[in-house]
Amino acid sequence: MRIYDIIKKKRDGSTLTSDEINFFINGYTNGDIPDYQASAMLMAIYLKGLSDEETVFLTSAMTNSGDTIDLSSINGVTVDKHSTGGVGDKTTLIVAPVLASLGCKVAKMSGRGLGHTGGTIDKLESIDGFKVELPFDDFIKQVNDIGLCIVGQSGDLAPADKKLYALRDVTATVDNTALIASSIMSKKLASGSQNIVLDVKCGSGAFMKTPQDAKKLARTMVDIGNSSGKKTTALITNMDVPLGNSIGNSLEIIEAIKVLKNEGDCDDLYEICVMLASYMYSSCTSKQVEECKLEVKEVLKNGLAFEKFKQMIKSQGGNTEVIENPELFIKSKISYEIISEKDGYISSMDSEKIGIASVILGAGREKKDNPIDYSAGIVLNYKIGSFVKKGDVLATFYTSSQSKIDNSKSIFLSSYEFSDTLPIKKTLIYEVVK
Amino acid sequence: MRIYDIIKKKRDGSTLTSDEINFFINGYTNGDIPDYQASAMLMAIYLKGLSDEETVFLTSAMTNSGDTIDLSSINGVTVDKHSTGGVGDKTTLIVAPVLASLGCKVAKMSGRGLGHTGGTIDKLESIDGFKVELPFDDFIKQVNDIGLCIVGQSGDLAPADKKLYALRDVTATVDNTALIASSIMSKKLASGSQNIVLDVKCGSGAFMKTPQDAKKLARTMVDIGNSSGKKTTALITNMDVPLGNSIGNSLEIIEAIKVLKNEGDCDDLYEICVMLASYMYSSCTSKQVEECKLEVKEVLKNGLAFEKFKQMIKSQGGNTEVIENPELFIKSKISYEIISEKDGYISSMDSEKIGIASVILGAGREKKDNPIDYSAGIVLNYKIGSFVKKGDVLATFYTSSQSKIDNSKSIFLSSYEFSDTLPIKKTLIYEVVK
Repeated sequence: MRIYDIIKKKRDGSTLTSDEINFFINGYTNGDIPDYQASAMLMAIYLKGLSDEETVFLTSAMTNSGDTIDLSSINGVTVDKHSTGGVGDKTTLIVAPVLASLGCKVAKMSGRGLGHTGGTIDKLESIDGFKVELPFDDFIKQVNDIGLCIVGQSGDLAPADKKLYALRDVTATVDNTALIASSIMSKKLASGSQNIVLDVKCGSGAFMKTPQDAKKLARTMVDIGNSSGKKTTALITNMDVPLGNSIGNSLEIIEAIKVLKNEGDCDDLYEICVMLASYMYSSCTSKQVEECKLEVKEVLKNGLAFEKFKQMIKSQGGNTEVIENPELFIKSKISYEIISEKDGYISSMDSEKIGIASVILGAGREKKDNPIDYSAGIVLNYKIGSFVKKGDVLATFYTSSQSKIDNSKSIFLSSYEFSDTLPIKKTLIYEVVK
Repeated sequence: MRIYDIIKKKRDGSTLTSDEINFFINGYTNGDIPDYQASAMLMAIYLKGLSDEETVFLTSAMTNSGDTIDLSSINGVTVDKHSTGGVGDKTTLIVAPVLASLGCKVAKMSGRGLGHTGGTIDKLESIDGFKVELPFDDFIKQVNDIGLCIVGQSGDLAPADKKLYALRDVTATVDNTALIASSIMSKKLASGSQNIVLDVKCGSGAFMKTPQDAKKLARTMVDIGNSSGKKTTALITNMDVPLGNSIGNSLEIIEAIKVLKNEGDCDDLYEICVMLASYMYSSCTSKQVEECKLEVKEVLKNGLAFEKFKQMIKSQGGNTEVIENPELFIKSKISYEIISEKDGYISSMDSEKIGIASVILGAGREKKDNPIDYSAGIVLNYKIGSFVKKGDVLATFYTSSQSKIDNSKSIFLSSYEFSDTLPIKKTLIYEVVK
């Protein structure tokens, strides 16, 4: 078998066999196939596409290119969730303890933030003492003991995907459904949970800009998951506005705690968390989703979910005092109010721009390995559909220096559009794909 | 300007500007753009195509990526020819002295053979003492003195093409009309002649298998040449059979001498040489092609073309005795007759296979820098349309060892097909593209 012939075959629009895809992925991972042949192959895949079956083969080859996590020593049904990336998305912090309090097992590996979206691991690290690296046995033990554990990715999961993603990033071959789906699913499959619920974001702050594109991606990922023996569901959710009101690491922990205490003042965050958790719970129990919703709401109301969250923070070495009393989180040096320059209904907010504004304030990394200011970020006072008057406080910035505010403010303000009439309210959850 | 954006633009099927193509070619030539981005770009070009204008820009960028030959100190009109590569193609050896004897200037840089096709420089080196490397001033002086000089490529002509070609060769992006046309024409334009006649081969022994594909390539190259201020013409010629009867270096010199002495026994070789030379002569003089044909035939008949050839051989240090008396060429150790195993009309001959058989006998290189056996090769006794009987001698092999014959014979014989009826004679020259 020669990679030249495989490139040529895909270039001419033919369908590759499992053997050919394995040859490509294994050869590229071990360095036998150089970058320049892999990038020609990626462009041919980008332009000629992959069939559903080829996409499953590609995912499987990438999953098997490195370590796979064995969760078989966990007692109970494991469930994982994945979000395709949103601004202000702190749902994992809420749904993981909800599921654990309902008796499911959440053995979760999460990522760090990069670009305009944050990462669960960075958020958890804003809690003093919290450990995101645990020995594997401790990870399993904690899940068996309390039902959940959230750590950073360990081991060499899907190294083929890591190497290919870096190449796609510089060869304009990122935004292809089959390649995105196989990239995400190879890591999820290597992570070992039995059930998977995907949150496919759609809108200005997401990779997929339209519900059609998001549905295509969701369909592809669900099919890969189900073909691989995992019960997989996807929710297509709106990311035209940031999720919740807070963007930034400790700011998002504080907001998550509010929801876990049933004190949330932001309907969209609460609603999405309830839906995600209900589908996750349903996949573990085969109960109907409507029944699951009632139980999910109940554990948010009766404090069991919040208790689970505290147990996890304690078990992983974090300071639970700040969880009990979020006022104790370290405050940022500067807070700055962004004043509306216009009267009108907020008709649109560009989540990606708001995410970037937050990164500039210090809440994220512009480059890998940049340090993070855990207290930095943005709290929004209004979202789409609100009527604001000139002089109203649109949002508050939290940061460590005035110069960051100057850099961030213009991009933040450019993210807003106003209108004289009340805009039509967009659906929060477009569709469920099973 | 970023190469990422240029790749993306071509990937999405947009038309690139001259600046963008220059950025790609210059960046790739000087190493700023790595192979893996260039190969993604090549695959995008392969699958999305280049407009006529983009192809001209690409050719120009590659022409200007290295040295360009300045022929302005030559007195008279310069003319060059290029063949896309055929088996038994010794036309340069005939048309160059014909043109010089008619008063045109042929300052020609030729290539070596690679793969199943031979190269003019290798053929000339079969003449004892002949120098294919001359100082540039001597090259110009010889053209001014006697009207022609044929040397190997010197200088750094179109280095971008050299680098890109090597990359195309391993990424399945070779057989694309715009890329082939710009590759050939960048070298021709850098070589400096005022007029260019292209011999675009078509058929079993050529890169282009059908007249339609050959015409597309010819049209593209002619347009590039004319857009670049060179009077350019292309002849689309048949390569379903080897050209002439001899394949192999000194064997082809011997056959060329026969044509130059008007003693050729092979009509197709004579006819193609007369046509090529007539179009070349016409492009230099603006005389009608029919008038040029008469003059071309005349210099072949009256010995002037042969005298020019001898002058060139002498001027470049070659032994003219073998030219006067080709019997003096060193003979191969072994000659071996290939006997027909069938009765019938020869209905098809696969030129590529015959070319490969000749390379196996020692006439060409399987890899760059392999040595050549100048006396090795094949002389055909019959071509398509001939009736042969079982036991007739189809061809004679010349080589240095019996084992080479064994390896070569089966592929040679597999190149023939026979039929009971006289096959339809194919056109030798399909079309002229101006």
